[in-house]
Amino acid sequence: MDNDRLQQVLIELAEGKISVPGALGRLRNLPYEDLGYAKLDHHRALRTGAAEVIFCQGKTPEQVIGIVERLRAHHDSILATRLSAQTAARLAATFPDVAYHDLARLAVIGPMPKPANGGTIAVVSAGTADIPVAEEAALTAEFYRNRVQRVYDVGVAGIHRLLGNLPLLQSANALIVVAGMEGALPSVVAGLVSRPVIAVPTSVGYGASFGGVAALLTMLNSCASGVGVVNIDNGFGAARLASLINEQGREG
Amino acid sequence: MDNDRLQQVLIELAEGKISVPGALGRLRNLPYEDLGYAKLDHHRALRTGAAEVIFCQGKTPEQVIGIVERLRAHHDSILATRLSAQTAARLAATFPDVAYHDLARLAVIGPMPKPANGGTIAVVSAGTADIPVAEEAALTAEFYRNRVQRVYDVGVAGIHRLLGNLPLLQSANALIVVAGMEGALPSVVAGLVSRPVIAVPTSVGYGASFGGVAALLTMLNSCASGVGVVNIDNGFGAARLASLINEQGREG
Amino acid sequence: MDNDRLQQVLIELAEGKISVPGALGRLRNLPYEDLGYAKLDHHRALRTGAAEVIFCQGKTPEQVIGIVERLRAHHDSILATRLSAQTAARLAATFPDVAYHDLARLAVIGPMPKPANGGTIAVVSAGTADIPVAEEAALTAEFYRNRVQRVYDVGVAGIHRLLGNLPLLQSANALIVVAGMEGALPSVVAGLVSRPVIAVPTSVGYGASFGGVAALLTMLNSCASGVGVVNIDNGFGAARLASLINEQGREG
Amino acid sequence: MDNDRLQQVLIELAEGKISVPGALGRLRNLPYEDLGYAKLDHHRALRTGAAEVIFCQGKTPEQVIGIVERLRAHHDSILATRLSAQTAARLAATFPDVAYHDLARLAVIGPMPKPANGGTIAVVSAGTADIPVAEEAALTAEFYRNRVQRVYDVGVAGIHRLLGNLPLLQSANALIVVAGMEGALPSVVAGLVSRPVIAVPTSVGYGASFGGVAALLTMLNSCASGVGVVNIDNGFGAARLASLINEQGREG
Amino acid sequence: MDNDRLQQVLIELAEGKISVPGALGRLRNLPYEDLGYAKLDHHRALRTGAAEVIFCQGKTPEQVIGIVERLRAHHDSILATRLSAQTAARLAATFPDVAYHDLARLAVIGPMPKPANGGTIAVVSAGTADIPVAEEAALTAEFYRNRVQRVYDVGVAGIHRLLGNLPLLQSANALIVVAGMEGALPSVVAGLVSRPVIAVPTSVGYGASFGGVAALLTMLNSCASGVGVVNIDNGFGAARLASLINEQGREG
Amino acid sequence: MDNDRLQQVLIELAEGKISVPGALGRLRNLPYEDLGYAKLDHHRALRTGAAEVIFCQGKTPEQVIGIVERLRAHHDSILATRLSAQTAARLAATFPDVAYHDLARLAVIGPMPKPANGGTIAVVSAGTADIPVAEEAALTAEFYRNRVQRVYDVGVAGIHRLLGNLPLLQSANALIVVAGMEGALPSVVAGLVSRPVIAVPTSVGYGASFGGVAALLTMLNSCASGVGVVNIDNGFGAARLASLINEQGREG
Amino acid sequence: MDNDRLQQVLIELAEGKISVPGALGRLRNLPYEDLGYAKLDHHRALRTGAAEVIFCQGKTPEQVIGIVERLRAHHDSILATRLSAQTAARLAATFPDVAYHDLARLAVIGPMPKPANGGTIAVVSAGTADIPVAEEAALTAEFYRNRVQRVYDVGVAGIHRLLGNLPLLQSANALIVVAGMEGALPSVVAGLVSRPVIAVPTSVGYGASFGGVAALLTMLNSCASGVGVVNIDNGFGAARLASLINEQGREG
Amino acid sequence: MDNDRLQQVLIELAEGKISVPGALGRLRNLPYEDLGYAKLDHHRALRTGAAEVIFCQGKTPEQVIGIVERLRAHHDSILATRLSAQTAARLAATFPDVAYHDLARLAVIGPMPKPANGGTIAVVSAGTADIPVAEEAALTAEFYRNRVQRVYDVGVAGIHRLLGNLPLLQSANALIVVAGMEGALPSVVAGLVSRPVIAVPTSVGYGASFGGVAALLTMLNSCASGVGVVNIDNGFGAARLASLINEQGREG
Repeated sequence: MDNDRLQQVLIELAEGKISVPGALGRLRNLPYEDLGYAKLDHHRALRTGAAEVIFCQGKTPEQVIGIVERLRAHHDSILATRLSAQTAARLAATFPDVAYHDLARLAVIGPMPKPANGGTIAVVSAGTADIPVAEEAALTAEFYRNRVQRVYDVGVAGIHRLLGNLPLLQSANALIVVAGMEGALPSVVAGLVSRPVIAVPTSVGYGASFGGVAALLTMLNSCASGVGVVNIDNGFGAARLASLINEQGREG
Repeated sequence: MDNDRLQQVLIELAEGKISVPGALGRLRNLPYEDLGYAKLDHHRALRTGAAEVIFCQGKTPEQVIGIVERLRAHHDSILATRLSAQTAARLAATFPDVAYHDLARLAVIGPMPKPANGGTIAVVSAGTADIPVAEEAALTAEFYRNRVQRVYDVGVAGIHRLLGNLPLLQSANALIVVAGMEGALPSVVAGLVSRPVIAVPTSVGYGASFGGVAALLTMLNSCASGVGVVNIDNGFGAARLASLINEQGREG
Repeated sequence: MDNDRLQQVLIELAEGKISVPGALGRLRNLPYEDLGYAKLDHHRALRTGAAEVIFCQGKTPEQVIGIVERLRAHHDSILATRLSAQTAARLAATFPDVAYHDLARLAVIGPMPKPANGGTIAVVSAGTADIPVAEEAALTAEFYRNRVQRVYDVGVAGIHRLLGNLPLLQSANALIVVAGMEGALPSVVAGLVSRPVIAVPTSVGYGASFGGVAALLTMLNSCASGVGVVNIDNGFGAARLASLINEQGREG
Repeated sequence: MDNDRLQQVLIELAEGKISVPGALGRLRNLPYEDLGYAKLDHHRALRTGAAEVIFCQGKTPEQVIGIVERLRAHHDSILATRLSAQTAARLAATFPDVAYHDLARLAVIGPMPKPANGGTIAVVSAGTADIPVAEEAALTAEFYRNRVQRVYDVGVAGIHRLLGNLPLLQSANALIVVAGMEGALPSVVAGLVSRPVIAVPTSVGYGASFGGVAALLTMLNSCASGVGVVNIDNGFGAARLASLINEQGREG
Repeated sequence: MDNDRLQQVLIELAEGKISVPGALGRLRNLPYEDLGYAKLDHHRALRTGAAEVIFCQGKTPEQVIGIVERLRAHHDSILATRLSAQTAARLAATFPDVAYHDLARLAVIGPMPKPANGGTIAVVSAGTADIPVAEEAALTAEFYRNRVQRVYDVGVAGIHRLLGNLPLLQSANALIVVAGMEGALPSVVAGLVSRPVIAVPTSVGYGASFGGVAALLTMLNSCASGVGVVNIDNGFGAARLASLINEQGREG
Repeated sequence: MDNDRLQQVLIELAEGKISVPGALGRLRNLPYEDLGYAKLDHHRALRTGAAEVIFCQGKTPEQVIGIVERLRAHHDSILATRLSAQTAARLAATFPDVAYHDLARLAVIGPMPKPANGGTIAVVSAGTADIPVAEEAALTAEFYRNRVQRVYDVGVAGIHRLLGNLPLLQSANALIVVAGMEGALPSVVAGLVSRPVIAVPTSVGYGASFGGVAALLTMLNSCASGVGVVNIDNGFGAARLASLINEQGREG
Repeated sequence: MDNDRLQQVLIELAEGKISVPGALGRLRNLPYEDLGYAKLDHHRALRTGAAEVIFCQGKTPEQVIGIVERLRAHHDSILATRLSAQTAARLAATFPDVAYHDLARLAVIGPMPKPANGGTIAVVSAGTADIPVAEEAALTAEFYRNRVQRVYDVGVAGIHRLLGNLPLLQSANALIVVAGMEGALPSVVAGLVSRPVIAVPTSVGYGASFGGVAALLTMLNSCASGVGVVNIDNGFGAARLASLINEQGREG
Repeated sequence: MDNDRLQQVLIELAEGKISVPGALGRLRNLPYEDLGYAKLDHHRALRTGAAEVIFCQGKTPEQVIGIVERLRAHHDSILATRLSAQTAARLAATFPDVAYHDLARLAVIGPMPKPANGGTIAVVSAGTADIPVAEEAALTAEFYRNRVQRVYDVGVAGIHRLLGNLPLLQSANALIVVAGMEGALPSVVAGLVSRPVIAVPTSVGYGASFGGVAALLTMLNSCASGVGVVNIDNGFGAARLASLINEQGREG
């Protein structure tokens, strides 16, 4: 499904359809669209399947709106993450079909894509306070056309709550496990299932949790294998990775 | 393929085949074998598919030999990681079929399992000094019956070496990317492929590399999505995760 | 006093009172009550004696109110910690019997439980600025039916203030020692008494106190033995632990 | 049982039995014995019950032998912790009744004290490599006359091994839980029992375990209450604290 | 000048002027005055000469006012540090003679004490932004009756500005050197004078200055000898130490 | 172009034009102008060429205005960095010719200096959110009379965007490469060019980026040579260094 | 002087001299030579001018010898850094013309290149213990054909030693300033000269120097502008950067 | 007693006794003696009184011997700190009058200077393992002609050992307080005396003591005033500072 532009440019050049300066120009100009403050990588959609997403943190409302405008020319649905309520309101004033999820701080512009056939992704959270990150993951996974099962507030201090959901956990193709404070949940989950576990530390906690560092270290040092870790509060990244894994099952 | 013992015990109990104390006893005794210093989790093989592995660091040679002896009753092939040359020699004196890989510091006891059909795992390393960790990953992946492609010494300071291997990278089902020093390679690789990337920081470097922390942070903060990170120098963990991902493709 | 539900389910199953799916269902459903955003662990009250507490940080006012509503069905008195004044006001508008302690940022909903017979817990603080954490500990200990002695502002820079209270310190069954800045007080106290000391670092201080890390390290490295440490500012956790210790004396 | 020397000196002074300079001298000289390089605190035995122990790290063999010699005048049994095999051999050459435990790196000089009546202390370890610290804790607890139950290699990656030992864990008066790597075990154990849990992080692990810091942070941030933490690898301190707790039950 | 109360109590007791319980009571009650939230250590004035100071951070306005009220009974002048403008206003409304220095965030209640004869203290700052901390030091030193010389904005990037003030620096009895950012100034100053240098890191800077940690480390690692370091932004502590040093010269 | 005042003073002294006290006075007074809160180093302009710049962070508006007033006597154009919009407005009310750049948070007072002949400096940024720091660098470089090429949003996750600008990068005399998050861009750029690369980490990112520390470490550990690193967000410092390098080419 | 291979391949392809697969092959094979464990980047010599250097840390003697063998085919002189005495001896046994500098732990294989015309690089060190890193820098700079001036042991605690060498410092085109402990020297030097300063922190020091971190932070936070920092102990990197700067002057 | 060479050179120049180049030469050559690897700062003896000391860490035996040889020409007694037993043996073979103190790892070459009249310095240590650092401080203080009182093993866990030595502590002019582990001793001491306290953290401890960092932070955050801190294990620096303070008393 991937389409190598580099190879294509070389073929056209070899066939005399384009000149050398033309080839250089194509390499320089085609794969992205330059807005000055941003270079939209339409090619990445083909190359990695991840282009129709805007990470809004650090961008002005004007920049976000400008990027959405240009992306709409190529994509039916666009995902905007780390989006403040204020910028979301500005966005909704410009585009009619913005669905903002305030807990997860993300918006889908255009229709939410339909789930593809194939396995599910389980999104598991340790505590109630971890739900915003878990929802960022769950909604992102749905945007990437996965079916998602949510299992929230099953932290290790009450292990039976987790055990009671074991069949559901064991039926998923990939699991995203979200935990703050001591971050022990992914280790326990990975000991109970035979599928990839994506661990997401959250900044939930206080004192020596150091804004999620304690949970991050716990997850990196997990005594259970089959665990990959993403950055603190990075629900999006976890979902993107879980989606790539789940797609594997679809394609296999 | 997974077999839930908890459910089985409940069924036998309900059918009157076992008593309540018997059921409690089964739960307590069956799923593992107690050597005093270690509780061998034969059940984990069924539950997560990862039991026939011994992590040797922190264990005495006698403990390692004792564990191998008991595991052989259940498994044709056993993987021993973080194994010193000295303990490996002791092991080889006891068991005839120990294959020790000194660069990767691991041994396979019994025959190396045959690769299953299905996709490949690419193991990519940034520098020559990262090869020991890369080999731990590559050999572990092979032990779990994956076909493996090695692409070594393609760090970002000479980006064309990486680009020259692009088709090979793009054909893998999962990629393990191993890098020390500044650890930038996984970000670049993840921007070029549409498959899961497992990033492994190594302790290679000096000064402000802090024994791999610099590379670890780089990977956690990757601007490219689709990247899961494991602990510093954890080639085994990366391979186990990549293998679970690759199996997905086989089963799908 | 503890009541093992797992064992109970097994017995009923063995006696044919429930079916296998029913047993699995009981394990899955009974021990907690699922509010979607929270799974209330009523069983934990039986298992560990700590369920009637709500840690409010990171929960919305609606979530806190919802949880209080359901807990009231099972408990006369409920403790809500890390509760902001705003949420407390909302809570007081819904429930008539909310007693909010603004310094300690906690509320007791329902009557404060009566102290049980038995020994006292001493709550000792180094400085005036440590009192909020000390009060969280003292009030929590009272909620768990302990008699509490407060000894505040006896930091090590004026050692005679501490020595003057020696008889009181030596008569307690357990001591909670709260200190910020350099956190030396628990070491000195533990050298003067023969009872367990729970050390609570606070985030009081500036500069190289790093929000309580300096005090935390001091306490972990205490040259006096008999000291257990809890997280920075974790007055609740200290009181819960001290209460478990004091109960020991009552039961013995 | 505690005997306040300060009060005693004041009484004798008030009764004219000693002069003011004599009282000052008593305060200055009596409570300890000065060896120049060490001030033996015989009084601490009365005051805190912990004097007959030598922490050997950083002391020369000559200093250790000198201290043992003087302590023998007051104590039948002496505990020497953090004792190298070399110094232990020197000690055994001087004193006939030295029992050295090389895994735990401690020695008992004189007879091991008999267990007192009362509850047990459970010493639980996550992995085989954590056993040295667990044994330091277990032997120290036995030295302080506690009955000890050892439960080793029950880490959270195989949660059923832990659950199988639940009745044993629930019957202890106090639990010492020892874990390296991700350090999640104390959180899970504290969620299953209603007694004080002393958590001991170990330096077992590699990479981002940072010599036990990851496990330490996990334990400090435990989402379960009733957990007190001691320094990394501090099996002695954990046992001393657990013993003070267990004594409570005896005295109550 | 110091007056040992412990000795005094012992004498009165020996002379039968007070009973044993009375002596214990004296030890317990006399040396400080208990406000509940604070134990005023009037004795410290005799013992260390530093009691008439209130560190206001973490205290409520009511507590500050209460403490000032009681201290006035014993002291003509009182120093209040880390005092917000709001609390200062409240204080000024209650007491007529409050002089608030907003840059240094401190107040003198009552007349500023007259300088004693003897040497000067030089207060040296690296940059304009370090002046608030430098002023806290300078005013505190004046409160303790020292003559003070201010030398501001003489950072090492323009070394001649420092050299131009060399005679002044060399004439001081003690030097307080205040610097943020890279914190190199105390090393250079200590290489130029033969008097004690008190180094004060400030939280001035950005990025990898980590709120003063970079400057703190620089000062602790100074290649010049004769340097003692205090906490980040601790102008008060530096002045108190410099004052004790300068007093030495007066008394000698 | 540099003019050594120390040498000059010595010459005049030797020639009898000035007395010894006069020479000392010259050294003390001439090289800077003392405003009390600041010592303006007019001499630094001669010595290092960097005096006409005001770092405004930590200075009051009054101090900034006062410094600008005095500098105007010696310089046509003045650069004010880390200048808030509020202080900029105050400045503009006092001086007619203030050009404030709000993204870069700096102002040029007086005319922007004309570019000198010679090579260009390329300012390269990884993401849109890094542009404020990149602009501080670009405008500062222009203030120092360099011609500047901006290449923004060319992060390593889309490596072809960078490769497409290769000729432009290779034609610069010095390159400033600005990146937050994982900070990998300078390593890749330095592998593609043969000119000095100044790497600027930014505080852009979240979680384990630790306010720019992750990017800083990446840059310090770069596997490519020819890279010098400045402080987090220090666009000014990067531009000053790049300008000194570019001047070299002009003078050579 | 740089020769863009990418462009060349495109031209030949466009001219029909090579086919598309041939072009891809050229891109994949030509620019480096694959030894399996290393991919020698001969192309980097053309692209960045830095290929003929081997970083030996983490490479086996066999790997180092193998790389030297292949590099000799393209280069008269080769630089091997971070080379142990043992490997150097092995190297000298294989190649006749190895000059090993044991203090700097580097070797030049083949003749030391002659200095080019142009400016000098000053290598300045703070202390005697910093000389090994300073020599790595000085010899590397000479290898890259620069004239080098060494100024050693001029730390800031004796500022006149530095001032005495001012004319020499001011005459260099670029300065490498090497310092451990508090690392203040580069700030002072950069305040005295108008040329680029490359700061090299060393791991010299003890205690809170943290293996060079204190010096590193000092340098990153330098209050003087015109300073670029390299990794701890990275004398090579500093010299490579200084050489690129000095070349600028030659070319200009 | 201080003799300003800079001023002297200016005077001679003004009087025509020396030429300008001669003056520059004097500044460059006189104040130190250049051994190539070291610049001996004889002038520092006059300027700061600290020149006759060699810090041996990081210097080769040859360098140490060379420096001693040259210093002997100017000084009767020389102090060599951080001196290994091996280098001390080499030194003793060259010079007849080397007194090596192996615990403190320092040597005095030549006669130990006689104590001057005046006050004493108290050197106080918390534990037996801190004695090496305490002895470095005590011997250094004696080298600088101070009378020294040693009070060892008086850590805060047995506070009465400290109180028993109160009169001795209160009679010193300056106190050096040495402590590892939790480092609380200086805070307690500073609360008991009215003289400057120099706090020295040691690297004694394990686990979360982080090689002395825990003790260092404790001391920097001391709740008692009048405390200055030096680097971890820096007994020499503490003694140098205490000596400067004690001299004040002598001169006053």
